[in-house]
Amino acid sequence: MRRKIMIKAGIIGATGYAGSELVRLLLGHSQVEIKWLGSRSYVGQKYAGIYQNFFQLIDEKCLDDNMEELARQVDVIFTATPQGLCASLINEGILSQAKVVDLSADFRIKDVKKYEQWYGMEHKSPQFVEEAVYGLCEINREEIKKARLIANPGCYPTCSTLSIYPLLKEGLIDPNTIIIDAKSGTSGAGRGAKVDNLYCEVNENIKAYGVASHRHTPEIEDQLGYACGKEVLINFTPHLVPMNRGILVTAYASLTKDVTYEEVRAAYDKYYEKEQFVRVMDKDICPQTKWVEGSNYVDVNFKIDPRTKRVIMMGALDNVVKGAAGQAVQNMNLMFGLNEAEGLYQIPMCP
Amino acid sequence: MRRKIMIKAGIIGATGYAGSELVRLLLGHSQVEIKWLGSRSYVGQKYAGIYQNFFQLIDEKCLDDNMEELARQVDVIFTATPQGLCASLINEGILSQAKVVDLSADFRIKDVKKYEQWYGMEHKSPQFVEEAVYGLCEINREEIKKARLIANPGCYPTCSTLSIYPLLKEGLIDPNTIIIDAKSGTSGAGRGAKVDNLYCEVNENIKAYGVASHRHTPEIEDQLGYACGKEVLINFTPHLVPMNRGILVTAYASLTKDVTYEEVRAAYDKYYEKEQFVRVMDKDICPQTKWVEGSNYVDVNFKIDPRTKRVIMMGALDNVVKGAAGQAVQNMNLMFGLNEAEGLYQIPMCP
Amino acid sequence: MRRKIMIKAGIIGATGYAGSELVRLLLGHSQVEIKWLGSRSYVGQKYAGIYQNFFQLIDEKCLDDNMEELARQVDVIFTATPQGLCASLINEGILSQAKVVDLSADFRIKDVKKYEQWYGMEHKSPQFVEEAVYGLCEINREEIKKARLIANPGCYPTCSTLSIYPLLKEGLIDPNTIIIDAKSGTSGAGRGAKVDNLYCEVNENIKAYGVASHRHTPEIEDQLGYACGKEVLINFTPHLVPMNRGILVTAYASLTKDVTYEEVRAAYDKYYEKEQFVRVMDKDICPQTKWVEGSNYVDVNFKIDPRTKRVIMMGALDNVVKGAAGQAVQNMNLMFGLNEAEGLYQIPMCP
Amino acid sequence: MRRKIMIKAGIIGATGYAGSELVRLLLGHSQVEIKWLGSRSYVGQKYAGIYQNFFQLIDEKCLDDNMEELARQVDVIFTATPQGLCASLINEGILSQAKVVDLSADFRIKDVKKYEQWYGMEHKSPQFVEEAVYGLCEINREEIKKARLIANPGCYPTCSTLSIYPLLKEGLIDPNTIIIDAKSGTSGAGRGAKVDNLYCEVNENIKAYGVASHRHTPEIEDQLGYACGKEVLINFTPHLVPMNRGILVTAYASLTKDVTYEEVRAAYDKYYEKEQFVRVMDKDICPQTKWVEGSNYVDVNFKIDPRTKRVIMMGALDNVVKGAAGQAVQNMNLMFGLNEAEGLYQIPMCP
Repeated sequence: MRRKIMIKAGIIGATGYAGSELVRLLLGHSQVEIKWLGSRSYVGQKYAGIYQNFFQLIDEKCLDDNMEELARQVDVIFTATPQGLCASLINEGILSQAKVVDLSADFRIKDVKKYEQWYGMEHKSPQFVEEAVYGLCEINREEIKKARLIANPGCYPTCSTLSIYPLLKEGLIDPNTIIIDAKSGTSGAGRGAKVDNLYCEVNENIKAYGVASHRHTPEIEDQLGYACGKEVLINFTPHLVPMNRGILVTAYASLTKDVTYEEVRAAYDKYYEKEQFVRVMDKDICPQTKWVEGSNYVDVNFKIDPRTKRVIMMGALDNVVKGAAGQAVQNMNLMFGLNEAEGLYQIPMCP
Repeated sequence: MRRKIMIKAGIIGATGYAGSELVRLLLGHSQVEIKWLGSRSYVGQKYAGIYQNFFQLIDEKCLDDNMEELARQVDVIFTATPQGLCASLINEGILSQAKVVDLSADFRIKDVKKYEQWYGMEHKSPQFVEEAVYGLCEINREEIKKARLIANPGCYPTCSTLSIYPLLKEGLIDPNTIIIDAKSGTSGAGRGAKVDNLYCEVNENIKAYGVASHRHTPEIEDQLGYACGKEVLINFTPHLVPMNRGILVTAYASLTKDVTYEEVRAAYDKYYEKEQFVRVMDKDICPQTKWVEGSNYVDVNFKIDPRTKRVIMMGALDNVVKGAAGQAVQNMNLMFGLNEAEGLYQIPMCP
Repeated sequence: MRRKIMIKAGIIGATGYAGSELVRLLLGHSQVEIKWLGSRSYVGQKYAGIYQNFFQLIDEKCLDDNMEELARQVDVIFTATPQGLCASLINEGILSQAKVVDLSADFRIKDVKKYEQWYGMEHKSPQFVEEAVYGLCEINREEIKKARLIANPGCYPTCSTLSIYPLLKEGLIDPNTIIIDAKSGTSGAGRGAKVDNLYCEVNENIKAYGVASHRHTPEIEDQLGYACGKEVLINFTPHLVPMNRGILVTAYASLTKDVTYEEVRAAYDKYYEKEQFVRVMDKDICPQTKWVEGSNYVDVNFKIDPRTKRVIMMGALDNVVKGAAGQAVQNMNLMFGLNEAEGLYQIPMCP
Repeated sequence: MRRKIMIKAGIIGATGYAGSELVRLLLGHSQVEIKWLGSRSYVGQKYAGIYQNFFQLIDEKCLDDNMEELARQVDVIFTATPQGLCASLINEGILSQAKVVDLSADFRIKDVKKYEQWYGMEHKSPQFVEEAVYGLCEINREEIKKARLIANPGCYPTCSTLSIYPLLKEGLIDPNTIIIDAKSGTSGAGRGAKVDNLYCEVNENIKAYGVASHRHTPEIEDQLGYACGKEVLINFTPHLVPMNRGILVTAYASLTKDVTYEEVRAAYDKYYEKEQFVRVMDKDICPQTKWVEGSNYVDVNFKIDPRTKRVIMMGALDNVVKGAAGQAVQNMNLMFGLNEAEGLYQIPMCP
């Protein structure tokens, strides 16, 4: 790997799709050196043998997930691992030596009981839940800067929350009427060898899944609840789309009063005008996942329907970047006092 | 073409995707002989030169759209043409000689003003609107049998209406809360040479379009209104999905009372148990477009969300078959007193 | 399943892609009743629970692969199983009770040593290799009619052999110069849960595989050798294409003399003019896999390059139909004296 | 656009796929400022309104193709235009003011007659053909540094030539036996609104096109001819693959003598060991287009077939980057004495 200057980084779960995207982004980051490519399944194998896109860019072999040792060697640890793993490995010793950005759901939900209910497992480190900062940079920027442990948001929650947040915060929509219909590319399903994710099962097909039961539901509800100051219950329906990358959120809510385009637009601008990674599209332009592919952007927009007095809110992001690895890097930048966009200058790729 | 026995059929718009699917289905229909392949753009060219899948199956050349002449030669005319064309060509003389199944929207909406508003064009044959029967076979079967002119339903309205109809008819859902989020394969956009439908623009991409303004909205609202006996306003958002065929509808509505799975299921069964083309899936199975591909089936199912007191209704069909050509054939079968399923025995193709 | 009249059929390996396509075709076959859906991995599970496209069409559960019992119950057994399984199960008792169509490679290669070398396994039933008939219907029709055991050809060999056969048989090309560059959809890789076949690994990607070592090489060489009466060595390179179905073969060979288009065309016509499943395209039309999708057709054509004195031969088929299940049904039809096309009337589906 | 320091660049044909990729790459180039986005079809329209991926990154509107004016304003002009346009606009005045990188074929073929024959048009600037340097950087680096006018190579010729060059140059293969079977993503067909390039026509399909007649044939033959010092005639067959980006070349040739893996490998290493954009893969690894997507890399490898005494040479690149815009930037870097890789650090994106 090319020499970098300041921050030593380790990744656990480096051979998953989020992990490999972290590698892509960190390799191009001017202030980071990757020191540890952890992958339980591929220990001892050359990393570039698994992801040949890194051929001649990375010579290192995969290491294990010894987080204690890792904490001694690096400044920041990214855990891009299955639910429960980070919580089972983390401890005060680790956190006192290295900052941790957890890309799993372990520390996203403040109510441990709720977590255990939706995820069907015991939480192994409830003592760190309170401390962990939910790493939605546009909303929790200041807390992130001071954090030791970041709960990197889920892909759906990032896209959903950023699409809805301004209107909810400004009281323009009724929190009890929110319905989120989301569509995701297949990389969101991970790199596990399952029949359901085979090319022939996904291609030329679309389906809903996890209807009224998807684990990202409480995470979204929590974030929306913080925005409006009361408990929110939503319908959230994810769909699997035959494409590699991208999430599109189409959200519906009833308006609390008659509003003009300009009023709603002003709400979005209030929160996002200075955000470099949130783009509020021009009037009548619907976000498309292709327009953010490979980049850390979230594109949002809305449409008022005067007939039904509802507003349709739309958001698009690359689930592997802003929905996972990109946001993790953005969090790291904030935690280390770097330019928030460092390593995230990728321009969306069309076609 | 192979010899058929009874019904002579003509198609105007035979080189569009719906038209060519009509050809595929009618070629396999035991009682039909195709006598006229009309295509304004390809007059005089061999039909199989445009659709080489019919090579050695069809030797005929494309003819024009002379509907008067066509009416003299055939028993049934299918118009798979752009909006407005059928209305501009049809007259009493034609209807007295041949039955007409119009796959465009010209005769779907009973309120001519509403049609003209949403479609932005003057209606050229308002005098036939009242007579035309909306060809949603599962709902209007008896009227269809006696009709001279069928308004073949749109792809989205077919899928949406059949997914929602039983619950609305049985009063289980509140008509003012219906939100329909639909996803369609690209064949629904037609075969016109537009940049937006190029492979590189559609592939690896998903977007909403026609938000709060799509022309199928009033058609769906009309049908749902008939079901519940009062005016219905909905939100309908179509999305373009990178696949050739298939529509998936995910619809949301508030329940009017506490219901069990069995009660809702009973409502679906009441209307569809005897329907051969509507399959109510087993509990917790979400419809997938792949499972109906190439066939005339509509797969529907639902999920109750006790947290939000809403029900999520799902439906999947092949937009070119049940959403267009297949339903047209089903209508023809009914009009001519044939077995409703004749020519429609195709088993869905996986993968 | 609907009632059928004459032939009782059993399938071992019914839950693979070839197996499920057999089910689709046999369900539509007027003379066949499916009596046994064998699937080692899914014994006791409802077949339509695995392939929901058959929902309400098949109520049966999966059975095991007890071929002895199966032979007592059915007239024909299809083995759509991994290499080696059919050879390990078959015996004289079975063959004396039921005809067998083996879709694996076990009986395709007459030289058992060669088989064992390329497939890396011991042949468990070498005594039946001689008897087995290579089921390439267009070439071995008469032998097939009398056979008890059919070695159903591989997908690549079917497409390759039929594309090249006439020119080789007529001595128009030099057998030592044949190069076959083949491209296949992903269903050819089967339904096994492997990382390499995940959607995200196949989509937006193309690669060669098995270069100079693919197991279909000796099978193709054997068939081409029979055509020209001497040993043939070829280069065969398969590629994985991001689509579900379809094989395209582009084959190159040096012409043995100056020839006109008409002379080469006459060679194709000589062998295929009366074949209902081989379509020799019109001049300058290149076969496309889409034009045969879902059907039993093979489309072939050629182009002479006077500059290099080579001919480029092209062929396209649906690997799951003519490349597997469709050809198996065609073989069954021949073995039982039925119309060769029965159950195979599917018209290719576009788009 | 962000401020850049040194080189002012203009693009004619900025709204095609190659043009927009030039924009993407030049926006990330530390030494370039884009001053002119020329697009005949979109004059006066906001560039980011056509390519919304550049929303908030580019505010400029499209300009015309006034090359005289452009030459006065910029240091380098990229012409990503249809064949013939650059030749019809260029003159000594322009070349004396600005360097020109022509991405069309106008100046690639030294024999004007041959150009006119294959391209079916009169050459409007034959006087500059001799001067133009063929911009295959790895082979003509020194000439490129001194050039005023670069003929940027075609996508297929770049991939084909780089895959074959070392073996031909070293005399290891017989130039009379070269067969190139190439597969391309659909962006290579451009952004023109043609039925053949519609999503539904390309998806789930593969076909050969331009068989024995594709315009890149003489370009490849010229370059291979220079490598071996005599006229070369090849077979070149391109195929259209359902993916956006990527070209894969599978080339075949007879070996001139018995060689080991190491000998052939040494030939590749001799020419590419120091090349940063050509990666010779490890033994037995077949290049995949996904592994170079979005980057300027060409991945090459080979396999010896001792049975047929042929070698199979494989190459993969991103047709929009190394096959067009990336190589154009690489050429510009060389012409202006910059680091050859500046602006081309993109790491391939998986998945």
